[in-house]
Parts: sequence; C-alpha cells; structure tokens
Amino acid sequence: MTEVPFADRHIGPSHTDRDEMAGAVGFPSVQALVDAAVPTAIRTDRPLDLPPALTEVEALARLRELAAENQVLTSMIGLGYYGTVTPGVILRNVLENPGWYTAYTPYQPEISQGRLEALLNFQTVVSDLTGLPVANASLLDEGTAAAEAMTLAHRAAKAGDTFLVDADALPQTIEVVRTRAVPLGLEVVVADLSEGLPDGDFFGVLLQYPGASGAVRDLSPVTEAAHDRGAQVVVAADLLALTVLRAPGEFGADIAVGTSQRFGVPYGFGGPHAGYMAVREGLQRQLPGRLVGVSLDVDGNPAYRLALQTREQHIRREKATSNICTAQVLLAVMASMYAVYHGPEGLRGIAERVHAHAVRLAGGLATLGAEIVHETYFDTVLARVPGRAGQIVRRASERGVNLRLVDADHVGIACDETTTDEHVTEVWRAFGLADEDAPPVHAEAVLPPALRRESDYLTHPVFHAHRSETAMLRYLRRLQDKDIALDRSMIPLGSCTMKLNATTEMEPITWPEFAQIHPFAPLDQARGYVRLIAELETWLAEITGYARVSVQPNAGSQGELAGLLAVHGYHAARGEGHRDVCLIPSSAHGTNAASAVMAGMRVVVVKSTDHGDIDLDDLHAKIEKHRDRLAAIMVTYPSTHGIYEETITEVCKSVHDAGGQVYVDGANLNALVGLARLGEFGADVSHLNLHKTFCIPHGGGGPGVGPVGVREHLVPFLPNHPLRPEAGPETGSGPISAAPWGSAGILPISWTYIAMMGGDGLRAATEVAVLAANYVAKRLSEHYPVLYTGRGGLVAHECIIDLRKITKDTKVTAEDVAKRLVDYGLHAPTLAFPVAGTLMIEPTESEDLAELDRFCDAMIQIRREIERVATGEYDADDNPLKNAPHTAASLLTDDWKHSYGREDAAYPLPSLRENKYWPPVRRIDQAYGDRNLVCACPPPEAFES
Amino acid sequence: MTEVPFADRHIGPSHTDRDEMAGAVGFPSVQALVDAAVPTAIRTDRPLDLPPALTEVEALARLRELAAENQVLTSMIGLGYYGTVTPGVILRNVLENPGWYTAYTPYQPEISQGRLEALLNFQTVVSDLTGLPVANASLLDEGTAAAEAMTLAHRAAKAGDTFLVDADALPQTIEVVRTRAVPLGLEVVVADLSEGLPDGDFFGVLLQYPGASGAVRDLSPVTEAAHDRGAQVVVAADLLALTVLRAPGEFGADIAVGTSQRFGVPYGFGGPHAGYMAVREGLQRQLPGRLVGVSLDVDGNPAYRLALQTREQHIRREKATSNICTAQVLLAVMASMYAVYHGPEGLRGIAERVHAHAVRLAGGLATLGAEIVHETYFDTVLARVPGRAGQIVRRASERGVNLRLVDADHVGIACDETTTDEHVTEVWRAFGLADEDAPPVHAEAVLPPALRRESDYLTHPVFHAHRSETAMLRYLRRLQDKDIALDRSMIPLGSCTMKLNATTEMEPITWPEFAQIHPFAPLDQARGYVRLIAELETWLAEITGYARVSVQPNAGSQGELAGLLAVHGYHAARGEGHRDVCLIPSSAHGTNAASAVMAGMRVVVVKSTDHGDIDLDDLHAKIEKHRDRLAAIMVTYPSTHGIYEETITEVCKSVHDAGGQVYVDGANLNALVGLARLGEFGADVSHLNLHKTFCIPHGGGGPGVGPVGVREHLVPFLPNHPLRPEAGPETGSGPISAAPWGSAGILPISWTYIAMMGGDGLRAATEVAVLAANYVAKRLSEHYPVLYTGRGGLVAHECIIDLRKITKDTKVTAEDVAKRLVDYGLHAPTLAFPVAGTLMIEPTESEDLAELDRFCDAMIQIRREIERVATGEYDADDNPLKNAPHTAASLLTDDWKHSYGREDAAYPLPSLRENKYWPPVRRIDQAYGDRNLVCACPPPEAFES
Repeated sequence: MTEVPFADRHIGPSHTDRDEMAGAVGFPSVQALVDAAVPTAIRTDRPLDLPPALTEVEALARLRELAAENQVLTSMIGLGYYGTVTPGVILRNVLENPGWYTAYTPYQPEISQGRLEALLNFQTVVSDLTGLPVANASLLDEGTAAAEAMTLAHRAAKAGDTFLVDADALPQTIEVVRTRAVPLGLEVVVADLSEGLPDGDFFGVLLQYPGASGAVRDLSPVTEAAHDRGAQVVVAADLLALTVLRAPGEFGADIAVGTSQRFGVPYGFGGPHAGYMAVREGLQRQLPGRLVGVSLDVDGNPAYRLALQTREQHIRREKATSNICTAQVLLAVMASMYAVYHGPEGLRGIAERVHAHAVRLAGGLATLGAEIVHETYFDTVLARVPGRAGQIVRRASERGVNLRLVDADHVGIACDETTTDEHVTEVWRAFGLADEDAPPVHAEAVLPPALRRESDYLTHPVFHAHRSETAMLRYLRRLQDKDIALDRSMIPLGSCTMKLNATTEMEPITWPEFAQIHPFAPLDQARGYVRLIAELETWLAEITGYARVSVQPNAGSQGELAGLLAVHGYHAARGEGHRDVCLIPSSAHGTNAASAVMAGMRVVVVKSTDHGDIDLDDLHAKIEKHRDRLAAIMVTYPSTHGIYEETITEVCKSVHDAGGQVYVDGANLNALVGLARLGEFGADVSHLNLHKTFCIPHGGGGPGVGPVGVREHLVPFLPNHPLRPEAGPETGSGPISAAPWGSAGILPISWTYIAMMGGDGLRAATEVAVLAANYVAKRLSEHYPVLYTGRGGLVAHECIIDLRKITKDTKVTAEDVAKRLVDYGLHAPTLAFPVAGTLMIEPTESEDLAELDRFCDAMIQIRREIERVATGEYDADDNPLKNAPHTAASLLTDDWKHSYGREDAAYPLPSLRENKYWPPVRRIDQAYGDRNLVCACPPPEAFES
Repeated sequence: MTEVPFADRHIGPSHTDRDEMAGAVGFPSVQALVDAAVPTAIRTDRPLDLPPALTEVEALARLRELAAENQVLTSMIGLGYYGTVTPGVILRNVLENPGWYTAYTPYQPEISQGRLEALLNFQTVVSDLTGLPVANASLLDEGTAAAEAMTLAHRAAKAGDTFLVDADALPQTIEVVRTRAVPLGLEVVVADLSEGLPDGDFFGVLLQYPGASGAVRDLSPVTEAAHDRGAQVVVAADLLALTVLRAPGEFGADIAVGTSQRFGVPYGFGGPHAGYMAVREGLQRQLPGRLVGVSLDVDGNPAYRLALQTREQHIRREKATSNICTAQVLLAVMASMYAVYHGPEGLRGIAERVHAHAVRLAGGLATLGAEIVHETYFDTVLARVPGRAGQIVRRASERGVNLRLVDADHVGIACDETTTDEHVTEVWRAFGLADEDAPPVHAEAVLPPALRRESDYLTHPVFHAHRSETAMLRYLRRLQDKDIALDRSMIPLGSCTMKLNATTEMEPITWPEFAQIHPFAPLDQARGYVRLIAELETWLAEITGYARVSVQPNAGSQGELAGLLAVHGYHAARGEGHRDVCLIPSSAHGTNAASAVMAGMRVVVVKSTDHGDIDLDDLHAKIEKHRDRLAAIMVTYPSTHGIYEETITEVCKSVHDAGGQVYVDGANLNALVGLARLGEFGADVSHLNLHKTFCIPHGGGGPGVGPVGVREHLVPFLPNHPLRPEAGPETGSGPISAAPWGSAGILPISWTYIAMMGGDGLRAATEVAVLAANYVAKRLSEHYPVLYTGRGGLVAHECIIDLRKITKDTKVTAEDVAKRLVDYGLHAPTLAFPVAGTLMIEPTESEDLAELDRFCDAMIQIRREIERVATGEYDADDNPLKNAPHTAASLLTDDWKHSYGREDAAYPLPSLRENKYWPPVRRIDQAYGDRNLVCACPPPEAFES
C-alpha cells in the first residue's frame, strides 16, 4: 500500500483513462502508441539514471535540508542587487497565487487584460521615473538590458562600431555587454568618464547612475558631449534613486536601462528580476522585448494588448535585432504593484530613508578613520581603508553583514530598504568601533540640489488608489479575475504549452533561505544553492545525454545564444573561426534565426517538404554549397510541426560530415524525456525551456530559464561569470546573463519536479503528452483537417488543425476560432505558427481526460457553428464566430441586433451555464493601437463610456 | 523619514480622508467626533500599555524567533490528534487564499455557493463514513461535539439524567463532557464498557471507536444493550478508521461525533480543526450547528443554503439547546477537499498504510519484550512495559519521536499518515532494539473480518473527478469564484463585521514550527507557543482591563459559557450557588440566552426602550424581583443596536448592589479598544470575538476564537485542562474546549495584529470604525431612516437602516435590498437583526473611503429604484428588487419578459461595467429546502436543466 506517487498528481489522466485514450487512438496500450509514434533510431536503450522519485513530503524535507545549508545574512553588497521588502499582500497574491504565476504571455489580449494592466503600470513606473516616454514591459536583467541598449544604440546612431562604457558601470554589466559585442564585431571600450569622454568615435555610451562605486555624478556634461559626437547615451539607472535624482530623460539620455529588483522582488541568489528599458521619442519602434499598448475593442472601449508586435523576431526572423521572447512579467507585475502600493510619496520616503542611512553610515565611518571616496552618493558608500578591506569585510560577515570587497584597500557598503540603525552600527563595529562606543554622527543630505529631482512622477490615479492592504488585495483580485490562467482552463499552446506548476514545486522559492541570498554573497553562505544547482545540472545532463549543462541563461533566447557562442568558440579554438553559416529550416522558431545573427552567423534557410519535414535534398545542397563555412544547423526536435522526423539522424550525420555542429532547439524536449537523449542521437548542443518541460511557471510571460547543454567538446565554451569563477569554465564565452546562475531563485522548482517524478515519472509524462496530443488529434480529425502526421499517421506531442480551406469556404478564420474559444472559457491554441491559417494544439500530460474532452467538445461545437455559416443559417459577417469574444455587457444590451441569439452567443454548450468565464473586453483592434501608440497608463477619462 | 506604519495599511481611509469624513459628519476632526460619540463615563484615562508597534518586517522577525522556540518532533501521541499531510494545492489555495479565508458565514447563500458546496461535500464525507444519514457542517472539536451529542441524546431519549461514558474515551472528551453536564444537572458515569453495560438507567452512552487506548471492539452488543434500556448511543469515531471499520450507523449508533483533523488539517498545537456530528433519521431537526442543504432558486435550479435555520439559538433564544454559532468552516473545507483529492480508494489506501505500520510496529515491539495489550487495533498500539514507560518515552523523544506516556507501565504509540518505516524503527530503538539489529517482524492484518467495513462510501462523482493537482486547483478556483469574500468587496455586517486579515498576520500559521506541534507534546517543545500565548493573554487583559484572559474557548459561544461558569463558580464558592437568574435585555444576541441556559441559569428578559436602550425601570424591577437569586446580567456594549448607552455604569452598579455579576458580551469590543476598558467601567467578565476585533479570519463561518476575560475575583474559575495543568487554575471550571489553549494554531494572527498596531494604532482603528459608521449613517440618512442614535445623534461602530415604512409603502423588503446589493457586487449587511425589517451596517476601519462610497452609492441607487416602485414606474411585483439577484443566464434568456431592461438589472451603476460580480444562482427558496431536506451531495442529474 504505497502513497499516491507525485507523478499521478502531475499527470492528468488516470491510468484507466490513459488506456481508454490509447484505445480511442487505435492502440491497445499507451506503450504501443508510443512505440508506433517514436522512431526506433532515436530511442534510447538506457533508462533515466535519476534518484528514486521522492514523495511530496520527502521532497519538501530534502528542500528544507538544502535551504538550511544556505545562510541568510544581511547583504550590503549592492552591485545592482538590494534588500527589499516584498509587501505580504503582493507576495501571497501574486508570486504565490496560481492566478498570476500560471498565466501565459498575453498574445490573446482579450483574456489577459489583468496582467496587461499590471504591465502598463510597470511601463508607466519606468517611463515616469526615467523621464523617457516609452518603456517596455521588462527585459531579462540589467546586464542584458544594457547589451540590448548597445545594439539599439548601434542601429540608431549608425556611426562606427565602438561602444564606450563607463568604468564605474556594474562589472557584470560590462562583461555581458562584451559577450554580446564580440560576435557582432562591436568594440567595447571601458574608460573612466568622470572627467569627460576619451578621444575617438563611439556610436554609444553607457553610463551608470549611480555608479557601481556609489558615486552620483551630474551626467549632463558627458551626455551633451556624447551627443555632440553623434553617439547615443544609455544610462543604467537605479529606479529607487530616480525618485530623488534627476531623471535620465531630463538630462538628455536616449535610453535608460536597469532592474526593478529592489521594487519588492527578493534577491533569489541573482534572479529572476525584471530588467527594464525606456527610450526617447523616435526609438520606440526599435525597442526590444514586449511593449504593452492601449487600443480599442470593437465596441470602442479601451483595451490593452501587446503593441508593435511586427518588430519581433518571430515576424522578422533573421532581420530581427534581438532574440528576446520571454520577459520577466511576473516580476515586473510585482515591481509595478510595489509602486502602486507605495505610491510616489511612499517610494520617495523609502529612498530618503535609504539615503539617510548611507549618510549616517558614512559620517560614522569617517570618524573611524575611513576615507569616504565619493562626496556624492545615494545609497552606496565607498570607503578607503588601505590594506584593511579584507579584514573589515570578514569582521562584518562575522557580525551577520556582507559588505563588498572592492579591492585590498576599498570596501563598498550599500544601504537599502531593509537597512536599520542596527545594521549601520554593525558596519561601524566591523570598521573598528568599540563595543561600548557610538560614533558622533552628523548626518546631512549630500545630494547637491542640481542633482535632485524636481519633477513629479506616478501622478496617475492608480498610484494613489490602493494604499490600504484591503484595497490592494481587491485590486489584485480584480485584475486576476479578468484573465484566463492555468487555474481556470487548459492552455493548449502548441510549442509553448503549459503544464502543472505544482504547489510543492513553488513552495521553496519564497522561503527566506532561498529568496534572501544575494548573488554575490560568499559561496559558503549558499552551499544549499550550490548543491541544488549542481544536482539539477547533472540531472538535466542525464536527461538530455549531454556532458554538461549550464543554468546561467535566464531565458530560452539566452540559452540559444550561449549555445551558438559555444559552437563558435569551438570552431575558433580549432582555427576554424571563419565557419559562420547557420542552416535553419524554414519552419524554425524565429528566435533561432535572430540568435544566429546575434552570434555573428549568417542564416541560410533550408526548405521544408509539404509534409513539414526538412527537405533533405535542399539540405544536402545547402551543405554542399556552404561546406567550408558551415558552422551549425539549428533544428527543433520533434519538429515545430509536432512530428518526430525519421530523418533526424541523417541530418545530424550530414552536418557533422561537413564539419558543422548540430544545435537542437530543446523547445520540444517534453516529447523526448525518458524516450530519447539529444546527446545520443546526434546533437552537440541544445538549450532547454525549463518553463515548458520542467515546470517553471510561465508567469504571464516570464520568468524563463533556458539552460544550455553541450557534449564534451563544447564544455570549455559554456558561459562563465566575471565575479564567480565557479559558475563556468575559464575558457568560456563570458556571461550571458547578469547573475552567475541566472534565475537561480526559481531553480528549486525544476529540481523539485525532477526529484518527485523520478525517471519513470518523467518518461510517463512524456508518453502521456504524446498520448494526449494524439487523442485530441484523433477526436478533432473527424471535424477538422490535421495538418501533419508522422509515422503511422501519428503526431508527437502537439497537432496542427488546418483552417485554411474552412476560411476559404466560409470566411471564418483561425483567429475567429481562437476568439470564439474564449466564449467557451478556453485559452486559444497557438495561432498561425508554424503555419499561417492554422491552430497548433499541445495539451500536455497534465490535463485530465475531462479537460481534454471539454476542449474537444468546444472545438467540435465551433465546427458546427462554422457549418451554420456555411449553410447560411448564420450571416457570414454577423455570427458568433466573427463577433467573438462576447462580453456580458455586449450581450445584455437592450437593443440586440444580431442574427443569432444571446444564449447561443453565451452558452453554446450547456456546461457553460455552470462555469462561465466573461472576458472584460471584446475583440481588440490591433492596428488602431499601433497607429495611436499609448504605452503608459491612460487617463481615467479614457475609460468613461 | 519613517516607514509607513502597519496601522496605515490596516486602516482604510487615509489621514486626509478621515478628516474629510469627519467633516461630512459635521465635526472638525475625528477626535472631536469620537469625543462626542463616546460617553465620558466609560472613557479610560490610561492609554494602552502595550509594546511599541512593530513594522511588518519586525513582527515577522519576532515571530520567527518565537517559532524557533518551538521544536517540531514526530508526534505519535494520538489522543485524537494525528500527523497528516496537507496537500499543497489545498494548503495554498484554501488556507492561504483570502478568497476562502476571508469569506463570511453563508447566511446570504446566493453569494456563497462555492463554500456551501464544499460544506455539502464535508457533510457527505461524514455521513458516508459514519453511515448515518445527516451530518452537520462541522462543530468546534471532538470534545464539544461529544458534549453536544450528550445534550442531544438527553433531549431525544427523555429518560433519566445519567450519561454513561466509556472509560476508553479520550480523556479530554470525558472532561469536556463533565464540564457541560454539571450545570445542566446531568450525571456522567465513566465505566469500562469492554465487558458490557453497568447496571442502572442512562439516557445515553458514549463509546470511543477506536478507543483512546487503540482498542477496536465490536460495539454492536453494547449498542444493542443500550438501546434495550432506552438509551441513545453516541459513537466518537475516527474518520480515517471508518474507511476500513464498520460504520457506526451500520451497527446501530444514533449519533456519531469526532474530528476531521487528520483529513489534512495540521495539529496547530490543538486547533482549529473541524469537529463533526452525524445523526440517524429522526434527529436531524435537533442537530446543533450549521446544516447545509439543497434547495431551488426561483428559476428552479438547485442551490445550496443553510437548512433548518429556525432551530438555531438566534431564533429560539432561551429555548435553544445549543449555543453554537461559529463552526470550523475553513477547516471543514480543507478536510472535505482532502477527501475530494484522495477519493475513497485514496483514503482507504492511507488507512491501510497506517494500519500496516501499526501492525508492523506491534510485531517488532512484541519481539522486544513488550506486551501488546490489545489484540485488535487500527493505528494505535498500547504496549505494557512494567516500570519502563517513562524511560522509553524519554528515549523516543531523544530520537525525535513523541510517544504517549499512559502511566508508569504503559506506552501508547499512534501511527498516522506521516509515519514511515524510519519512525517505526526509532520507536523500536526506544524500546531497546540495538542499533545494529532489526527485529524479525511478521505483519499480519489484525482487523477481524467482522469489524471490517464492506460498504461503499464517497461514491458521488465529486470524489472521483479531481485527482490531478490541476483538476483540484481548478475545482477550488471555480468554487471560490462563485463567492463574495473580503477580497472582492466589503462585508458590512452589523455585529459580525469583517476587517482586514493581513497577510503578515496569516503567514506564521502555516509555518511548520507553529502548524506541526501536537497539543500534548511536551511543553518544552512548545516554548514559543507558551510565550506567544502568555503575551497575547496579557495584552488582551490590558486592552480589556481584566485581570486575566484565557484563550481556551475556541468560539465566542464557548467563551460565553466559560464566563458564565466562572460566575457560577464564584457564587458557589461563596456559598451562593443558588444564584441562578441571568438578566438578559430583549435586544441581546440569542447566543447569550442559550449560553445562560447551558450554564444552568434561568433567563429573565429585561425590556428595551423605544430607543433600543435597556429599560432602566424594568431593570430595577427585575433586579428587585430576583435580588436573592440574581447571578448575573449579560449585556452587550456598545449595545446590539450600535449605541454607546449612557446608562451602562448605572446598570453595572445596580446589578453589583444586588450581588450579581456583570457579563459584558465583547462582541462589540472593536468600538471600545483604546477608548474604554470593560474591566474599568464595571464589567466582571466578558468573552471577546477575536475574529471581529483581532483579525482572526472568518473562514466562511469559522474558525472562531472566543477568549474569556475576568476580573481578579473570577480568575480561579477560568477553564483548565485535565492533560495540561499550565492551561488554567486548579480550581477552574474544567475544560471548555478539547485542546488546552483552544485554537492555538491561529493565535499568532491576533498576536501579530496587536504587535503591529501598538496601542495608538489600536485606538486609531476604533476611532476610524466609529467614524466610518457615522459617515455611512450620515450619507444614508438622507435616503433611509437610521433607526437608533445615541449622544449627539451619533452611532457607535454600526448603524441600522430601517426599511419597515418603505416595506409598508412599496412591498420592497429589507431582504429585497439585501439581495439587490448582490447585483451591485456587494455583500448585504446584517438582515433583520437586532430588529426585523432592518439592515445593520458595520463598515469597520479597514474599508477605505472609496469602498464606503461605493456601498453608499449602491444603497442610494437602490433607494431610487425603490422610488420607481413607489411611483409605479416599476411593477410592484416584477422589478429589479423583487427579482434580485440576477444571474447572467437569467438576463441572457432570449425571451425577456420583465417590465425593466436587462441593463437596468445588471448595471444600475456605470462602475459595474468595469467590475461585475455574477451570482451563480438566483434567489433561493428557503422553505422548499427545509420541506425537502437533502444534506449530502445530490446526484449529478439534479443539476441537469
């Protein structure tokens, strides 16, 4: 009598249901179906060698042990990471609430108005504080944001290839920028800019504000000088400091970047946190990442949606200039809510308090004989103590406080929201204050009036309306209720699907022992993290068949770049650095092409056959043509069409024979785990999307985690980190993310998932994912054409429903079906990818049979509705599909003028009367919003009807 | 620059808004308003002497210190409390989710269908497992459930006054039963029933199944014998055991009671947990507590609501036979969801596993020389080890396991869901197994076939449909979405209002160090609890002006009983045990009268004046008449009419002069904290409702916590506990609750609230509560008559809106208004209490001005709607008020036949278009449900429309 294994909670269909589903597809067992679907050539004969599955209780016990190996000290290290207080109401009702953390990227804006509003608030915060008109909905971290700013500046300035970086920029930012610059042929010059610009031409300048040393300088002169030379000015600015310091936009910056971590997001040993970018007028159409804008729905009501999507890499592909897909939505939401809760006075109050602590601290240190290096600072004090720095840092650590050891003569001390008088005293003690003494401190403001911010910010009512905890709680609930997340319905997104994010997986991430560790805290305070990360990397290597995995890339896009840089590093080390051709099948994710370009490669497209497979003839021809310069092929397996291509081993062999490396995009790894290993069937390198295969919650569009795995020969070229030699090989590519282990704070989620599933559970998950896709394909195939199938008419883990003929016959489009699904309370499948006019459905193993059937029933009923259009029963332009989704208000209008009934619109299936989701807006006019770009909170009057 | 104090997050209106509100009521400041409202005679001149307010960060740090003083061992003590695994999905989405924990008792069933469904599931679980047809929606704990069963049996049997209790009943149950029996003049005889019944007459018998010793006996013979003597048979049964043992209903029990703690509810050092009671056919109309039943709404759709409400004490008053109001809804919901998640096979699997551990454990102990006392047991093994018991228990504790020290010769060991092989081995080691040895164990099932359960249970689909975590998550979300809780709108219930339950207050209760302590664990493992409880009791004493407070009573009703027993104890100790008259004003809560009866007193009602005050002439007359037998007066202050009665000091003096004690019901303490102290202006004893004044969440109808506070002379008569001398005075009344400190597990909530508010914050909360009530009264008084006012035309913390004339003129009733408020997205105020035909509104300090205005705007708009009825614009019988609430489905019907428009029905105010709550059912037919009583899950066909 054993406990119910976690795998049976994670996997939706019961064992009986699995058999029934296999039967429906025509197989006697799941095993038989899987054997028929998965090519023998790729099957592994070695079961996963992972520790036995833990129960949820055992996993939590083990996690508590690991947590206990971490040591929570007060960190006053700074360097872009600061102590902050997450308001309980936000912690529990956002970060710990599945209504927020299981939401998908808001591609379907009608069911995403809640998180879109939260993101618009975020953009408003960033835009207001930076003094720049357009901000995006977050980037991955400050380092990559700076790198993105560099390339944006390069495009904007069109002048030279040199990027000038202030020596007082954050050290990890400088190195991330370098990593990005090298493959693009850009030169990074680091110089002390405190006395002005060096000679030479630059397309851009990166300034840190305040500097890593704590220094706050008037950046107007250097900005002006840079502009005089035609350069774009990027200011990496601290958002909290901007509540009291002049805004970058006010002294002429073109671009501002940074992190919103200290707005209520815990350290998490480095992430995830939301980076940000804001730009001046004129640059908004080149802004990387997601941008939320205001538009109108068909009834003319204001509605939010992602703006200017056409600039993204999935449209522009190899012409894209950034490969960013995932942002850090969940963390951006937290930061924006922190600003909503505190309001401008609250934020300013925190900043003033932090500054006052720093001033008091410095005053005391001066009396203790330390030289305070900078006269003007906000929160960080740089103390010169010749020869004594190491000893002081050690003594502080013994007193429970981490300081920054700058060098043998300098100590950096950063104050933050959590700093108390006691902390300041402990620092004084570490600097030599006797136990019985308190230093005479005179604390005067040190920010010169010229640097002080005079302008207003966060004047929008939303930043003034939710000050009590009750009001905040209700605001969060109201927004959450507007959206469909995984806690309401399945989200069957082909290629981006969402499986269960189990509570037990989520629990540890908010424990203080994981949440409250600074990324640059001494490693002996993070032994639990180090062990957990090592185990996770080892497990991922075992699962993928690779020699080594690095968890540093904090999104799939970053993993791709890291993998391609490893390929390049490998070729270069062998004297073949000229190999720069990257073959990419036409069906690939746009990100692949964008990443290749960022890695300095030329993209050569390989055709697909009518069946969606790689066209082998074309492949061989392209290999032949580019044989000498062939760097790599990037393929997705199973393919983006959801097929286990039989030819994959031949593809790998052909590329290898020509001296190229094989990059397999791990996007679809969830169809392989336990059945096949990438590293065994021919791949050299892959990135994995932990959110998809290993249960990192999607968070409404981030966090992502995109580890990169490589075979032995590529190991020396994995990412590393300037501040943490343990994070990667000395010969590595440089840092791909700002933090040594990327989004370390959420790695416990994937660790817990693997630990609780064990090898057998993971394989079962894969099998049921394949089963579910085939079950859905089978049920729907009687009503819609299923576009591609592989062996035995089977699909892999997803299936594509082809609407093109239906559209031709009836004008009902795939988009109409997607929007009509909202009326059925369901999130649409992936629309128009990888084939326009289709819907790609990936149900995952986590959906039980009842939910799969609910989805199929809805799709079948929709097909009947389409039939009514075909027969003329419904008007071709005025029918429930074209008018979908229907808000309650639109149906309740006293003058109903449509050719169909209200009840048909609202309750096309009887079960909807029991459980009805009401979208807050109707179909949104995308073009209107792009023509009339509004990317910050609109005035309340906009919502008056 | 100080941080925002917690008080400014807890209190809704900003300081500016408070001034504005005072102005609207006609006062220059809040202070001036309060000075005008509160009689000088009761005002205290001594500010609250409490520690300085902590910030939220400081409070959490202090709580972590206290938590660290508790020590989490594995408890195998049993005695009604067992280790259990709370499924993460339930922990996070029920116990930690404000959508569940901030809900109110489902008096307004239309906005409570989610929690009512969960409670119906609970009733089905209890009914199925006990084999009895009707179960209630929980009681406070097993001990009080047994006591309630005793009085129910007494009423049912109508034969004698002796209650026979099995000596193998839980020791705390026996003592709670005794405490309850004494004042009612019932005799409790405890006897070993293993060989049959003793001689004599009994109205009832209480059997424990399995016994406290672990013994499982065939209870059929004794049941039959008891029935032969005309006695009712009460079986205190373990729900988990009932999954494998014959059900009490199957062997003839009349009543089953117990706890559902081990269905996923943590120990919490004794509570809160949901007790249960189920009864045979014929007793259901006498069942104490809440009973959920199925009825129909006006559209004929099935709908849940509280059934047979007329039997409750607020209707029957002094004729009531139980004073239970609050149940343990939140915990009952958790237990029911545990059953939903595991289903019958899962529960049986857990039981079999537990049993197998016990068998294996016993087998090993036997080889180690222990005598296993009982041949037949389920989970608890009683080992006879002459003279060695103390040493063994000590050794086990050193190995991290708590056992039960029965006496010097006996050790009890209880297995549970969390027991592992390792635990069993540790126990063996404590019994002398050498480190290197493992005993040869033969584990055979020991339950004789005759005791084994053969019948099915939990066959309803709900116990088979939500087995994956995803499915469970969605079920919880779906139910939650049906309801209005504090996370959606204010719940302005006069006399029962709901203030913020802050996240920071809620956080500690699910930390393992507070959640995982067995109530009978050695006290040195609970030092943090002891300290926290001592501080809380001291603070409550300081706030109330009493000498001592006991937190044992786990609901207000129990606090009342404890207080009255203390009064009786005092009189008796002074040789005045004959004093048995309890004066109760006619306006009192019904519970007061019911409690007085339970305490063995005679209720004498004192009239109220037309102004709602106590009629002093009648009071003096009644005192005169009963002077020699006067035990006490029970008054509520401020009065249940929401008035600071000027005469309170005179009332106290008159009663004292006649030798009586003054019991002030602390229900309205939230209007006094910081302004006046009960113990200073004349009261001798009070109970407090922590949920109302000190932020215990209402949980949909429990948990409650009802501490009792007394002046010095009553201290010796406070509750105590048989297993824990530290919990009360030796001379005390006996235990009033099963656990020594009642619902200890949630006391951190009130501790945290007081710690973060500090004295000034608490006083400010009181002042703003008074301000808000007067603001609402002022705004509404232009549209509705406000029934009672005190000094200067002011109310205290609540106000009563009189609908009676309106009803007479227009037929629109207070109930119509209450239901119409649902269409406005608001929870109704208290309906028809304390005056029929009225609504009593208590807004609390936590509602900000915007929400207060939203409520007032709705009430005013409703008044306009009423006017339309008055003018004939709306039909008198077919109007939005009479037809309220409106479901979406009812409005979307294609054949709309009402005299008003759909939009008028749905969106009477424009703001509702932004934020609309849709009730899942229309107005519910109460009478139909009582005539056709269905109190378990109806078959799915019932929901087919």
